[in-house]
Amino acid sequence: MHFMCRIISLLNRNQPVLFIVIFLTLSNSALTQSDDVDALFLKSIYDESLGNGMSYNWLRQLCKEAGPRLAGSTAYDDAVEVTSSQLRSVQGVKVWLQESTVEHWARGKKEKAVAMFEKGKSLNLHVLALGNSVGTGSKAVTAEIIEVKSLDEVDQLGKEKIKGKIVFYNRPMDATKLHTFHAYGGAVDQRVYGASKAAEYGAVGVLVRSMTTRKDDYPHTGTLVYRDGIEKIPALAVSTNDADKLSQALQSQWVRVKMESHCGQQGQKMVQSVIGEIRGSKFPDEIILIGGHLDAWDVGQGAHDDGSGCVQSMDVLRNLLALGYKPKRTIRCVLFANEENGLAGAKEYARVSNVKKEFHVAAIESDAGGFSPRGFGFDGDTSVLKTYYKYVSDKFLPLLESYDLNMKLGGGGADIGPLKSQKGLLIGLRPDSQRYFDFHHTTIDTFDAVNERELKLGSAAMTSLVYLIDKYGIGR
Amino acid sequence: MHFMCRIISLLNRNQPVLFIVIFLTLSNSALTQSDDVDALFLKSIYDESLGNGMSYNWLRQLCKEAGPRLAGSTAYDDAVEVTSSQLRSVQGVKVWLQESTVEHWARGKKEKAVAMFEKGKSLNLHVLALGNSVGTGSKAVTAEIIEVKSLDEVDQLGKEKIKGKIVFYNRPMDATKLHTFHAYGGAVDQRVYGASKAAEYGAVGVLVRSMTTRKDDYPHTGTLVYRDGIEKIPALAVSTNDADKLSQALQSQWVRVKMESHCGQQGQKMVQSVIGEIRGSKFPDEIILIGGHLDAWDVGQGAHDDGSGCVQSMDVLRNLLALGYKPKRTIRCVLFANEENGLAGAKEYARVSNVKKEFHVAAIESDAGGFSPRGFGFDGDTSVLKTYYKYVSDKFLPLLESYDLNMKLGGGGADIGPLKSQKGLLIGLRPDSQRYFDFHHTTIDTFDAVNERELKLGSAAMTSLVYLIDKYGIGR
Repeated sequence: MHFMCRIISLLNRNQPVLFIVIFLTLSNSALTQSDDVDALFLKSIYDESLGNGMSYNWLRQLCKEAGPRLAGSTAYDDAVEVTSSQLRSVQGVKVWLQESTVEHWARGKKEKAVAMFEKGKSLNLHVLALGNSVGTGSKAVTAEIIEVKSLDEVDQLGKEKIKGKIVFYNRPMDATKLHTFHAYGGAVDQRVYGASKAAEYGAVGVLVRSMTTRKDDYPHTGTLVYRDGIEKIPALAVSTNDADKLSQALQSQWVRVKMESHCGQQGQKMVQSVIGEIRGSKFPDEIILIGGHLDAWDVGQGAHDDGSGCVQSMDVLRNLLALGYKPKRTIRCVLFANEENGLAGAKEYARVSNVKKEFHVAAIESDAGGFSPRGFGFDGDTSVLKTYYKYVSDKFLPLLESYDLNMKLGGGGADIGPLKSQKGLLIGLRPDSQRYFDFHHTTIDTFDAVNERELKLGSAAMTSLVYLIDKYGIGR
Repeated sequence: MHFMCRIISLLNRNQPVLFIVIFLTLSNSALTQSDDVDALFLKSIYDESLGNGMSYNWLRQLCKEAGPRLAGSTAYDDAVEVTSSQLRSVQGVKVWLQESTVEHWARGKKEKAVAMFEKGKSLNLHVLALGNSVGTGSKAVTAEIIEVKSLDEVDQLGKEKIKGKIVFYNRPMDATKLHTFHAYGGAVDQRVYGASKAAEYGAVGVLVRSMTTRKDDYPHTGTLVYRDGIEKIPALAVSTNDADKLSQALQSQWVRVKMESHCGQQGQKMVQSVIGEIRGSKFPDEIILIGGHLDAWDVGQGAHDDGSGCVQSMDVLRNLLALGYKPKRTIRCVLFANEENGLAGAKEYARVSNVKKEFHVAAIESDAGGFSPRGFGFDGDTSVLKTYYKYVSDKFLPLLESYDLNMKLGGGGADIGPLKSQKGLLIGLRPDSQRYFDFHHTTIDTFDAVNERELKLGSAAMTSLVYLIDKYGIGR
């Protein structure tokens, strides 16, 4: 149905309440006219998304049929199949796949670790090998552990204390931070760089406290980065409950840990990002991108990270088409490959886009979980960011505030980052962050952890912003 | 520790970041000084609540030791014991109990219902008797059901169609409403008034679709009100999945339902509300109340409804004392009895307060679940509301916005409603509403449905607003 027909039909369905709006729309050519039409269309977007949205059903299928889908795995290929079929089911969307090459890492046989205490007891630890980590192989690594709270502390302790040991990084995420991503940012250096830092001084392995403020038994995996020229030593994440137990024991005795893992790099693999678009009717060369990343860690089902962002983005296209909206600009949904351990899909997407001399007027990523949306965060090249942000927030915020959404400088997303040089706006959907690190990179990031309404509201928020940017641009 | 000492000690702990604040505080006597002190104190409130808050531990104990605690039950008395002990454990809080008299309703033996279809099959329905409902007794009630979407439809159908039937109210909550409480408000008349409306035309029983937008197997109980002079007929809530199955079957065949329930009024009982306060140092006769209701339905554990509001309110007192804050006004935490089916505790509290000529400058209720707080809603006598709201929002909102909190007209709470005649501000904490009706009045409203951080943020938000009102008043 065409856009204006849809508005008329909406009006017919809700005669009493909306009579004033008809009146204004037909009789008043001042600024209020477009405001009213926009308010009405945003309402229709929310109705469509909450009432008929497909994101939740699509997420169920993605989680159940593809599940733990690290780029390079067969599960990832299943995810490409599932989501490209879902996108193709939406009439009016052109779908294609874009290849890129990833370093395929695999966990192999389940890792394990046991702590042996000076005073005689032992404890099986809840562990997960970190992504990109080398494995110990079946002979395992056994050594005394030494607890540190930072990379700096390893420098201070030096070779004398570190050599031959397993370094146990145990600085918790700061629970007093309002936004959990800030707490994550303040602790995750241990996971990313801890192994190479410990190896500099001759450590034989690394245990890292899981990245969550919760106290529980679920270890959280995630990527590590080995520094060139430093020996690669094996690294495991340990659950927060177990980390607390180890730390407690170390107050009064030595603790040795035997760790065994069978993970490692498997060589290069070709993977595909999934792309669907509605071509713009007036400015087809101006692209508004919405997206998330299709890969996920190889445990759980990647429901919040980032199945949610994928299905929300797909549903933006479906919402617009279901409402009969014909975009002026090209609206493109991209499900990127390999965000978790390499960003190969995002880099390739930006490379191809630059070769084709495309311009992304805005790119919106949802990669912070399928939770109740609080607003959008804005990033971009410093030469344009403030101008565009002022235009967008002055013009759109009053409309979005009715849906409890705000706007802030700072945000974006890992997959859209490589598009910064095109000098459009980079925008991150900001869901409520409180529960994200309960699930992040664990076995419990599963479909049942996602609430249907919260997920659909994220899709409605993204659709609303896409509609407004398509209609009014960003003030260039 | 005294307030200013606490500030100094905070400064000492965070020297580099806060040096500018020290400088401003000591050298600058302009308006910015109090703003900085307030911003700093709000930060300390959030640190305290997220870092050392007791609300989550208290909630666990309340849920596990008292659980389903309808006013008049022994579980309710256990809840009084648990929470008054918790409050007494906070040094500096004076604790007392306030009696009121409730009509005690009890479920008795578990209710059941079975649907028998014209075409031969049968289905055991997931049901819960509605609160205040009469029971069928062991002889049960069996009759054909007739589906309606509204009370008006019952009037239209009249005696001819309704007499001797079980009326099946099946208008769903409107999932397209942004705020679930609006969707609830648009459907709950069926549950509250449906039985008497059906009885007017000779119906023998009532089935009501559960008040939730979810499709699942959990029936949601809740109160009904019998109109005077109309026969009291038994009423059950049925799960949304079963409601859909009944409705589907009714398209092509008759359906008979046999319903059996053993609930009923048990006579009057004396119950207690729990009260704790910190007396004001300067204006002890001006009271700032924070509270929730201690009673809960007799299924589940009343974790979100309203254990969360109780422990959050208790933790406001603990937060203020832990930070060494000495309030000018009296800060009083009230855990009201009998919100769910009578409001006896709230009415008695207001009656006694009026007799004592107390003045509640503000009353803040948390009774919308322990979810991530989005802001506060304001209510009050029309003669004062707008003036006070303007003062409070102009002065406090800039500070609270840093914590992602907003303010809106409209709100309050059932238990604080009777205080409106005192002409202070009535304020409701507004948590994110998306998940509330997943749990409301069901067996799954249990401790594990509450997220620790979300709960504690609600307490921090309430403490912040109490601090600001205590310090600056409401513009009287």
